[in-house]
Amino acid sequence: MEFQYYLPVNLIFGREKVNRLGETASLYGKKALIVTGRNSTKKTGLLDRATDSLKKAGIETVLFDKVEQNPLTSTACQGAALSRASGCDVVVGIGGGSAMDSAKAIAFLSKNEGDISDYIFGKKVSDQALPIVLVPTTCGTGSEGNGFAVLSNPENHDKKSLRCNAIVPKASIIDPELMTTMPRHILASVGFDALCHNMEAFISRIGQPMTDILSAEGIRLLGKYLIRAYTDPADLDAWDHISWGSTLGGMVIHTAGVTAPHGMEHPASGLHNIVHGGGLAALTPAVYEESISGAPEKFALISRSLGGKNETDCVDQIRHLLAQLHLSTHLGEQGIQNGDIDWMVENCMKVSAAGIANHPVVFDREALRNIYRKAL
Amino acid sequence: MEFQYYLPVNLIFGREKVNRLGETASLYGKKALIVTGRNSTKKTGLLDRATDSLKKAGIETVLFDKVEQNPLTSTACQGAALSRASGCDVVVGIGGGSAMDSAKAIAFLSKNEGDISDYIFGKKVSDQALPIVLVPTTCGTGSEGNGFAVLSNPENHDKKSLRCNAIVPKASIIDPELMTTMPRHILASVGFDALCHNMEAFISRIGQPMTDILSAEGIRLLGKYLIRAYTDPADLDAWDHISWGSTLGGMVIHTAGVTAPHGMEHPASGLHNIVHGGGLAALTPAVYEESISGAPEKFALISRSLGGKNETDCVDQIRHLLAQLHLSTHLGEQGIQNGDIDWMVENCMKVSAAGIANHPVVFDREALRNIYRKAL
Repeated sequence: MEFQYYLPVNLIFGREKVNRLGETASLYGKKALIVTGRNSTKKTGLLDRATDSLKKAGIETVLFDKVEQNPLTSTACQGAALSRASGCDVVVGIGGGSAMDSAKAIAFLSKNEGDISDYIFGKKVSDQALPIVLVPTTCGTGSEGNGFAVLSNPENHDKKSLRCNAIVPKASIIDPELMTTMPRHILASVGFDALCHNMEAFISRIGQPMTDILSAEGIRLLGKYLIRAYTDPADLDAWDHISWGSTLGGMVIHTAGVTAPHGMEHPASGLHNIVHGGGLAALTPAVYEESISGAPEKFALISRSLGGKNETDCVDQIRHLLAQLHLSTHLGEQGIQNGDIDWMVENCMKVSAAGIANHPVVFDREALRNIYRKAL
Repeated sequence: MEFQYYLPVNLIFGREKVNRLGETASLYGKKALIVTGRNSTKKTGLLDRATDSLKKAGIETVLFDKVEQNPLTSTACQGAALSRASGCDVVVGIGGGSAMDSAKAIAFLSKNEGDISDYIFGKKVSDQALPIVLVPTTCGTGSEGNGFAVLSNPENHDKKSLRCNAIVPKASIIDPELMTTMPRHILASVGFDALCHNMEAFISRIGQPMTDILSAEGIRLLGKYLIRAYTDPADLDAWDHISWGSTLGGMVIHTAGVTAPHGMEHPASGLHNIVHGGGLAALTPAVYEESISGAPEKFALISRSLGGKNETDCVDQIRHLLAQLHLSTHLGEQGIQNGDIDWMVENCMKVSAAGIANHPVVFDREALRNIYRKAL
């Protein structure tokens, strides 16, 4: 038994904790670049609330509100240019995974020269970035709990994460009340993503004692409470638990990585800008059907956490959960075509080599092709 | 549900990982004060091995080998004087809890002026200390996983911990092979201490989701493997698991604190220099007999992890474990007398107010007095 575990993020969890944003960010800087999307944090009033909290703590703010779904490397460059020009010394990301991942990439590019793709593909490394404080508004990505920033390159459709300790947030404020404004179909999608993070870290070949404990708890919480929050959005206790389950999912993939479902989804959403949770919903059952033999005890635990009995009904439980979330889907319904498969297989080997290697059954190109076909 | 969780220690775990001490410490300094006890790390050759590793990484070393059992505030002052005079910029603690806690206190005093008791009792605060790297040689204290340093004041016998984030080690190297040289009676004592940390954090009123998961795992591991390592010291897998369980115990008390058994033991070992694990062995059953009603579900889980069925046989399971460890004892056998009880009760309210407040049943002076009498 040997492992290394290091995740120096200060987790501040609870309803109304977003009011502590100003005092939290003031530990790290005096001028904050706020990174968010175009609409939702404005509509809900959260952006105003966050800006007020920062100003009350004596922090100047600059707004970058250009983040899109499946955020682009070029958008991060644009944000970093604003950050540098404005002299920001801390980056505050507010929103879903796209906003948080963009905040991380902007904080990184504010301190490092050159093409971010070189850092994403490991040709260059750096341990420098501006300090980052994150406020998630979806319980899915878990970005608040790790040092990953998933970006898509608009030139070649590569969707791959920048991964380094420099972009582990200094602090993350997880306020479950902020999640409750999500439309139900978004909750279904991000909640399933959160479950996938925990399941993939749990079955990962590079999992270790700490991630095993935490991911098992994340699976348990999402298995128990996701449908409750989806069915009754007034159930605040359920939102508490799925928010924490989602943060756990982010934390565990930092160390244990993701496996084949995420590895195979990135080519799909990189190519066609599909919704990440939808891609995972199409791929996960198809991938897991070919995976049970690689880690039967682990799939048995997953199954039991979802209401099943052992590894033999694990995929059934996942399909049942997807049906309850109205998220049963295929890649074809999302715009992926048969002619895309060869590109996705090659791109998967390029951008997701680590995730494929972490999977309990290692897939070659032919296996990937078959799974994409089955999921189409 | 609300909580905060922050524990920025880099855990490096595994057999022979002590060989990475030099490269690890080199991230934090160029001249290391090595803090250790008088004998055991010399006899086992570990001190030489650690010094070699540091030197190979280009780090100068200065040795402070004056740490005693139940280390004194005055010893920490002496170490800090050497650290300052030698210009050390990193502190490496090698040994059991006494050596690691002294290393932390020395790192703290190297950067802060005045009487350490003022910081221990919260009259002064500081977030400064030299960086600390720890190498435990016992699996008990868990000091490698937290920001506590328990010290005894030789003038008034106060035994209380300095607690602050500045003394959370930057990195800890937990090499289970280093533990295997412990005599069996030491393993019994420190292993029971590790179990107590996990149990006390698990029942603590200030426990939270993260510490609940980790402490439950610590209890499970020590419940399953402590007797195995004690019975068969060649069982290296068992040593792996109890070493990790011990680190978990240190981690969870950082956030969830300790409760009445530790709170009541400190006055005893502060006054009479008794072995900490022995004091806990005498006090824990007596305390828990008065505590079950405060958290029956939690005591039920503890009992099941130790082989019992529910909360009603939890204390029996603990007594049975102590008997297997040949650690059944009373305070009287360790030199505590009836006439010490009044002092211990008052001292407990002074040095252990937080631990008493965290306990699931809150004890007044009369309750403490009765428990000390029963444990005598």
